Amino acid sequence: MMLRVYADRMSQPSRAIVIFCKVNGIDFEEVRIDIVKRQHLSPEFKEINPMGQVPAIVDGRFKLFESHAILSYLSCAFPGVPDHCFLRLSSFVENNGYTLSGLLDTLEADKFYLVTHVLYGRYPADLFTRAKIQSILDWHHSNLRRGASTFVLNRALGPGLGLPLNPQAANEAEKILRASLSKIESLWLKGNAKFLSGNFQPSIADLSLVCEIMQLEVVDEKDRDRILGPHPRILQWIENVKSATSPHFEEVHGFLYKVKARLHSRLANTKRNDTQLSMKPNPKL
Amino acid sequence: MMLRVYADRMSQPSRAIVIFCKVNGIDFEEVRIDIVKRQHLSPEFKEINPMGQVPAIVDGRFKLFESHAILSYLSCAFPGVPDHCFLRLSSFVENNGYTLSGLLDTLEADKFYLVTHVLYGRYPADLFTRAKIQSILDWHHSNLRRGASTFVLNRALGPGLGLPLNPQAANEAEKILRASLSKIESLWLKGNAKFLSGNFQPSIADLSLVCEIMQLEVVDEKDRDRILGPHPRILQWIENVKSATSPHFEEVHGFLYKVKARLHSRLANTKRNDTQLSMKPNPKL
Repeated sequence: MMLRVYADRMSQPSRAIVIFCKVNGIDFEEVRIDIVKRQHLSPEFKEINPMGQVPAIVDGRFKLFESHAILSYLSCAFPGVPDHCFLRLSSFVENNGYTLSGLLDTLEADKFYLVTHVLYGRYPADLFTRAKIQSILDWHHSNLRRGASTFVLNRALGPGLGLPLNPQAANEAEKILRASLSKIESLWLKGNAKFLSGNFQPSIADLSLVCEIMQLEVVDEKDRDRILGPHPRILQWIENVKSATSPHFEEVHGFLYKVKARLHSRLANTKRNDTQLSMKPNPKL
Repeated sequence: MMLRVYADRMSQPSRAIVIFCKVNGIDFEEVRIDIVKRQHLSPEFKEINPMGQVPAIVDGRFKLFESHAILSYLSCAFPGVPDHCFLRLSSFVENNGYTLSGLLDTLEADKFYLVTHVLYGRYPADLFTRAKIQSILDWHHSNLRRGASTFVLNRALGPGLGLPLNPQAANEAEKILRASLSKIESLWLKGNAKFLSGNFQPSIADLSLVCEIMQLEVVDEKDRDRILGPHPRILQWIENVKSATSPHFEEVHGFLYKVKARLHSRLANTKRNDTQLSMKPNPKL
């Protein structure tokens, strides 16, 4: 039976799983679970994931939830994925217009072993590299994810899910989000790092964290600029991940861009109506 | 150079790492980082962990933070740890008064392979089992940990760290904590499961989650009973993990019990003074 991925592309961890499968050429069926229609809480879906959250997968008789656990599992379970953690290098090489010999020329001697083995077959996973990636994935939960998802929910997406906007909660979350972005930039993107921890190819940590930040697309442009503007390395890193996972990254984010357009046009209408109302003479005066 | 573990035994993930090392016979040096004295924010410690949090480890030239990443790393890096995830079975067998043949008699045929291989040497890690353990560890961050640590901080420990108690935040956190305990009980401890997911020996997920719940020792007994009382399987599971990791579990939690005694005696004094005050005649009347 083909791998099934239960996902809603409005959910950032869902997008990470779908992009990962596409970039790595994994044969899978995407089953849409519409959160707005509360399908994630249906008894049928709870048979797949009793926690009632997307994403989840079914691989044969094996069921799994939590996106990081899924990414790690897929990295090990499918032979097309190099080093149990990284995205497929060949597409990265092609998408960046490198040739293999050109790429090898740019590398320091100590990385030659890595590249040749990634390109020509699997090699024993580097315990230290994997541990560092795991550390970023664990850090993510209580920092970037907590800040970004709480901010976006209370600033823009809440009403679509039947929840009120909460400016105070949004402000608190923005503080966590800003601190998280500063940490990522100063620690894992320091120097001329193209990807997290100075890796020369994107790992599952790059994919998970960038998909989270992409959720900021749906908030007001001014908010987004205020939060991301001070972080040029973060902006460059997002572009690097987009480019390395092209064209799947933009294709999978298409749904998010549509929601963004709808929300922003609604916001513009509200502002226009507010202006018209404030220009009307007040009959009470 | 010996493995160094930077920890404060008041921190639940620190305790999980220290217990793990002791149970698995890993040779290590514990370096105390006193959170109350703000040593985790010192420039020296930030050289070890730039996030300024315990626990962290240094193994040779390799530095790592985030407790789950550390547990996974130690599981792989030290040959004494069976199956990269589980605690050493031999101590589990001894501490529970089993004999090997008696243990094997109690197992179903399909588990025989597992036991023999764990006892007699390492075996290729079971991808499905590891993925399930990883899923629990990932779930933990935004559920049990978020609920329990926020509750304990706002109900009891805050003032010791220079933070005020916040009853509203404690109430919100209690909801998350209660929902998390219900999920653990109904999902991972269903049936007669001795350990999470029905495993017959404790994994790093059991250790991490039980250390988190143990933090409730420092809140008022009535609060603890109200929260844990409705969960007999959780209470039994805590005992199972304690027993399987004896005597290290209780030894490492000794510091927490001391803080508990100090906090409870302070609380009793405050209550006594309040009663005496309320019994004094009010001069204004």
